[in-house]
Amino acid sequence: MSKEMMSRRNALKLGALGVTGAMLSATSAMAAAPTEKEVKFDEEYDVIVIGTGFAGLAAAAKAAERGLKVLILEKMGRVGGNSVINGGAFAVPNNKDQAAFGIQDSSELFIKDALKAGLGINHVEMLEVIGKRAQETLDFTIKCGATYQLGKKPTWFGGHSVNRTIVTSNMSGSAIIQPMAAFVEKLPGCKLMTRTKFDDFVMSADGTSVVGVTARTNYRFDNKLLSDDVENKSGEKKVYKAKKGVILASGGFSMDKVYRQLQDPRIVPDQDATNHDGATAGALLKAFQIGAMPVHIDWIQQGPWASPDEKGFGVAPLLTQQGLFVKGVCVDVRNGKRFMNEMADRKTRADAQYVILHQDPKAFPVAIGTYNTFDEQIYAAVEKGLASGVMKKFDTLDALAANYKIPADALKATIKKYNEDAKNGVEDEFKKQSLKDVVGKEAIEMKGPFYAIRTVPKPHHTMGGLKINTKAQVISGNTNKPIPGLYAAGEVTGGTHGASRLGSCAIADCLVFGMVAGESI
Amino acid sequence: MSKEMMSRRNALKLGALGVTGAMLSATSAMAAAPTEKEVKFDEEYDVIVIGTGFAGLAAAAKAAERGLKVLILEKMGRVGGNSVINGGAFAVPNNKDQAAFGIQDSSELFIKDALKAGLGINHVEMLEVIGKRAQETLDFTIKCGATYQLGKKPTWFGGHSVNRTIVTSNMSGSAIIQPMAAFVEKLPGCKLMTRTKFDDFVMSADGTSVVGVTARTNYRFDNKLLSDDVENKSGEKKVYKAKKGVILASGGFSMDKVYRQLQDPRIVPDQDATNHDGATAGALLKAFQIGAMPVHIDWIQQGPWASPDEKGFGVAPLLTQQGLFVKGVCVDVRNGKRFMNEMADRKTRADAQYVILHQDPKAFPVAIGTYNTFDEQIYAAVEKGLASGVMKKFDTLDALAANYKIPADALKATIKKYNEDAKNGVEDEFKKQSLKDVVGKEAIEMKGPFYAIRTVPKPHHTMGGLKINTKAQVISGNTNKPIPGLYAAGEVTGGTHGASRLGSCAIADCLVFGMVAGESI
Repeated sequence: MSKEMMSRRNALKLGALGVTGAMLSATSAMAAAPTEKEVKFDEEYDVIVIGTGFAGLAAAAKAAERGLKVLILEKMGRVGGNSVINGGAFAVPNNKDQAAFGIQDSSELFIKDALKAGLGINHVEMLEVIGKRAQETLDFTIKCGATYQLGKKPTWFGGHSVNRTIVTSNMSGSAIIQPMAAFVEKLPGCKLMTRTKFDDFVMSADGTSVVGVTARTNYRFDNKLLSDDVENKSGEKKVYKAKKGVILASGGFSMDKVYRQLQDPRIVPDQDATNHDGATAGALLKAFQIGAMPVHIDWIQQGPWASPDEKGFGVAPLLTQQGLFVKGVCVDVRNGKRFMNEMADRKTRADAQYVILHQDPKAFPVAIGTYNTFDEQIYAAVEKGLASGVMKKFDTLDALAANYKIPADALKATIKKYNEDAKNGVEDEFKKQSLKDVVGKEAIEMKGPFYAIRTVPKPHHTMGGLKINTKAQVISGNTNKPIPGLYAAGEVTGGTHGASRLGSCAIADCLVFGMVAGESI
Repeated sequence: MSKEMMSRRNALKLGALGVTGAMLSATSAMAAAPTEKEVKFDEEYDVIVIGTGFAGLAAAAKAAERGLKVLILEKMGRVGGNSVINGGAFAVPNNKDQAAFGIQDSSELFIKDALKAGLGINHVEMLEVIGKRAQETLDFTIKCGATYQLGKKPTWFGGHSVNRTIVTSNMSGSAIIQPMAAFVEKLPGCKLMTRTKFDDFVMSADGTSVVGVTARTNYRFDNKLLSDDVENKSGEKKVYKAKKGVILASGGFSMDKVYRQLQDPRIVPDQDATNHDGATAGALLKAFQIGAMPVHIDWIQQGPWASPDEKGFGVAPLLTQQGLFVKGVCVDVRNGKRFMNEMADRKTRADAQYVILHQDPKAFPVAIGTYNTFDEQIYAAVEKGLASGVMKKFDTLDALAANYKIPADALKATIKKYNEDAKNGVEDEFKKQSLKDVVGKEAIEMKGPFYAIRTVPKPHHTMGGLKINTKAQVISGNTNKPIPGLYAAGEVTGGTHGASRLGSCAIADCLVFGMVAGESI
């Protein structure tokens, strides 16, 4: 990537990110996908699945259960992509536990909720499939060994009209991924290879259908590169035939330093995401090159509740969302003033943070509260945050202000005003919703000690991707019909969530359409 | 396209839109772009330009002026695409007329304005080029014969901090397009072919560079097809060599019934746009297939001021924006109530209209006013609207209500309340900005006659497209570097305007980067 192309209004450190001569030797990478006439297949399968997250494992499990010979490729050293570090919350519209607890739900209500969050541009036919098949998919994963907290009242997530979310036994996606990976590996004819990187599709002789993939074994992903997909030359080339087709379940691109910044130039290369390092766009871009149609590519959901002082999702989101953002304040370190409603929607808050970071890339806004701002349930997380250093504790506001170089008097005035508004039940300047109800009579105890976290928006989920139909077939822009032999599911697809995905709908989307792909192929 | 894929919450008439057996015979269309080994060139040029709008003609003029042999391809029967039906307003930051009239402007101020409208996701390096080179580009087009209203105070357009827009002599893009088309056709070695459809790129033997195009002469665009790009088989195949490269200036896709609806399912196939019929995505999608990177694809600017009762841009936008929307009201025909601030931004209003059209695709909201609602300058347009039938005149509100099947009592109550708010200077429920200032003491005369227009959002400009750098080189996702031999300019590119383009910046973008492409190639 040319220096000029990457030159954004935020400072870039291209040197530090490993742009080396290696990225120049990409001649072969520019050629079109090879046809079967141009390659020699090393191995032959019925189905090849790219990716081992929720979508990939559900697809592989369903296909292998049907007696198909399945090869599953994972470029990273471990299985599970983002799914295994996910929070394990699975929206299941109209589920059995809702019925047991007398909660009225329907596919229509789920679609209405999703359309509202998605700003009306969701592909409704996809939501209908999720609405109809989520319970069946939950049951299928249980059969594969996944464990959930069942028999309880389902959990409520923001934006859902009713409690409809089932949570895994350990509140992590690992309670789905690990048993399902073990399940598929035990099925006859099913093979899972880690450190094996999908490189390109192999097309039929006439160029119309997907009949296999080229890949590299012994691949070593390198997170120090600006673009691992373009620059990393490790591994040994292999060619695999897929007699029935390929299922692309390669995930989103929240960690693709180049492609995410093309969609949102505010996301600088050294900015962390909540995702694992391997969440890049390479496989998606290859699908575009054989005719898959890009949809909703620029909607990147970013979490305004994250911290630059820890890697990935971390503990900050819990401490801000169930603590500092609720009863406390978030201030611009340059003037000690609040600059947003700390409880607004994710996009509004991230946009407000970016205004500051645009002016000064190091001026991470600081969330501030006292011990009374934290819900009792997260006291353990408070200790964890302090131990890791992502949250700091100060005896006085002066000490806090000094640490973050915030003008102390201005900060004190901000908190005094905020507390007075809370006490008087007055809606504040940023219209923090129901300030008096949310914040309570005493917002921040002025005597301290005080707790503080530096905040930054972190890319969390990429809504956009390629267009699939309700059978998980990838649609070609050349024909407006499915590309024979190509299926996709999960975050690599776009359209389902529209502009913004509701919480706990990622697992639903990935597992349902993973299963659909495994059935359809 | 499968029926299921196109099944949206709005009614579709696939049969009426010409989905026939013809679209099934697309085998060859699915193959990858051919290499030079697979084709025989019919003719040879230095440069091939795709499209004859602002970007294409500026590119061709600049390249031909440099002594290059240029072939310009236009699929339609006439030259100029959307540009020739455009309003002729050209934002020129820091221009000579601003200086003459003492208007302080700068590239920085222009960028600030564009970033605000674009929600901060604009590619700033592109705006910098426009800011720096717009005046020079204006001068270049004048040299080519374009005529403007110069020596006057530049015009103000919404969202611009200062008056910076130069308007053509006839307030139409035709005052640029027609002389420039004549200019390039007179240059030695320059050839312009209409009814010649770009089909695909021809790649170098190693697949890395663009070395030509395949095309069809005697092409007859068919606006009755759901997808002309996929289904239309007319014309005779030709292969043209481009020794220095191809400049893609094929425009946006506001009239692509399939691809625009993938981005925004609310835009049904039979919905008109302000664009000419040929504004489809085919050439853009072909560029994605040789590695161009999709950017900001789903941001489609839609005009809430248009009418379903006339084709294209029409006269309604003038009558609503300088009349009915300002002092009058827009009501939901089902209940006679207002449902939006008639002066809100384009997206907010289009979203509000879509809520109604989602519930009932034929319930086009009706804008209503009396003669006093129109600015005096547009009295001629009032007569034109009445003559064409896009606007109707009624002696009484009862007659108006009966015509549109609006509950008459509810409509009268709505207008009574609106007038009272205006008279009392009270901000209304939709917070119509400064109601008393905008609307005046007497909003709608209750004695009539009354004027009414049915409204619908019409797609106007597609922000998204492929990524180019500041030299108009198309960037490949396989290398993060330019694709040798491929340049692009204008609405087919994405990033420059971010989420929303400011008025009068389309001409600036297209002409500046068209010129840059003609220089760079």
